[in-house]
Amino acid sequence: MRDHPYDRAPRPLHPRREQRHSELRVFGLHACLAVFQRRRDAIRKVYLEKDRLGQLRDVIAHCVANRIGYRLLPGDELEKLTKSQHHEGVCFEVLRAPLLVLDDVLAAIPPQQSAWFAWLDGVGNPHNLGAMLRSAAHFGCAGLILPRDAGLGLSGAACRVAEGGAEAVPLIGIDAAEPAISALHRHHFQLLATVVRGGDDVFAAALPKRAVFVMGAEEAGMSHALVARCDLRVGISGSGAVESLNVSAAFAVFAALWAAQSRP
Amino acid sequence: MRDHPYDRAPRPLHPRREQRHSELRVFGLHACLAVFQRRRDAIRKVYLEKDRLGQLRDVIAHCVANRIGYRLLPGDELEKLTKSQHHEGVCFEVLRAPLLVLDDVLAAIPPQQSAWFAWLDGVGNPHNLGAMLRSAAHFGCAGLILPRDAGLGLSGAACRVAEGGAEAVPLIGIDAAEPAISALHRHHFQLLATVVRGGDDVFAAALPKRAVFVMGAEEAGMSHALVARCDLRVGISGSGAVESLNVSAAFAVFAALWAAQSRP
Repeated sequence: MRDHPYDRAPRPLHPRREQRHSELRVFGLHACLAVFQRRRDAIRKVYLEKDRLGQLRDVIAHCVANRIGYRLLPGDELEKLTKSQHHEGVCFEVLRAPLLVLDDVLAAIPPQQSAWFAWLDGVGNPHNLGAMLRSAAHFGCAGLILPRDAGLGLSGAACRVAEGGAEAVPLIGIDAAEPAISALHRHHFQLLATVVRGGDDVFAAALPKRAVFVMGAEEAGMSHALVARCDLRVGISGSGAVESLNVSAAFAVFAALWAAQSRP
Repeated sequence: MRDHPYDRAPRPLHPRREQRHSELRVFGLHACLAVFQRRRDAIRKVYLEKDRLGQLRDVIAHCVANRIGYRLLPGDELEKLTKSQHHEGVCFEVLRAPLLVLDDVLAAIPPQQSAWFAWLDGVGNPHNLGAMLRSAAHFGCAGLILPRDAGLGLSGAACRVAEGGAEAVPLIGIDAAEPAISALHRHHFQLLATVVRGGDDVFAAALPKRAVFVMGAEEAGMSHALVARCDLRVGISGSGAVESLNVSAAFAVFAALWAAQSRP
């Protein structure tokens, strides 16, 4: 567990920086198709390899109809543009979806409905974020709660790994922990600290119908202060042969166990 | 699903190639410490950054006592040596552990004991292999079954991602599917094809006490021929917002659900 919570006054973003950060290069076939399916108005520019033309016919038609630029690029130039070998022959420049407000998301969930959130307390690796978005989308997560100060933003790499999941899961920005905890409690959500040691065995636990799984940083785990504010502590018991599961594997397991208990 | 099974006659390895492939550069702190803990006689050479000396005191003492070479290297040279930025300041050159023989591993499991294996039918990404090794170790997997012809070998990157799990899970090489299936059946193991569509919902299924989860390739899934030879087909039902879970996330979920049902 870490010693320092990230609770601080929200930092005002430098306007220029905000400008620069408002666009995102999404790459990977499923990731781009998910943007096209759910948020095509956000597409500013399309880059693709020639042999993707067939699969992206509708995208090109949309570009033509809406005067959005598209450009054929060879693989090595796409690699430079995306800074990745895993571009899969396509890259969209898109406007970022704004982070949502927790109160709005909570208000939209019917009072008696089962639902789960994930709260990422310091997860720093874009591949883990992407993997978690994919699992979150698969298991119908109500939203990923991202502390703004933790600096975890959606990157092209995370979107690619999420295979479309980044467009399906609401991303919620919070400036401080306490108001978010209060709002979640008001809506009868319980916070579950996911810990490596000292938690209840999740296999034996009855999971709340309204749950928030709080996931800690890859190395350091959750902040002590946030663990102390959670309603339950749960861990995934194991053989002890490795110290713990990877954070995105643990995430998939918690989500699956919650889904298993909440089946109609 | 893929159309082609990998069943072919075993290829004799070229002796030189075997020589070249008999050593492996393991890097990452947990991965190296696991080798030291479980298989220190396999260590041929140790490279480390100066600031790891304190944590690796016992390793250095072992090197000195056994005339094993060790060398301090700066980070950028470790990066070249390991071809990775994620060397975490340490790299061991180790002899590969030989792949185990399925019959031997099966014979060592007491007849009434619950146990599970994973069979990797075409998983090609070393990060996925590493993630699966870590989860396999955590959930006490009896062994990872690797078709030799599938070309999936243990790499330094997979070991690093496995965080020590590569030393804890028996790796079993098989030359062809049929004899392996027969051996598993003889020992009352059931094969579960893990499929994206058309399987029984794993959340509603009673999992066999002796189970082999057969995991398909990242994109193409399992080979048709192998699916047809499995005793059950299972899938992880979801929202449909993404096509499927990542193979290593799915693997963690299957392992966890099996572990949940097999708790004493």
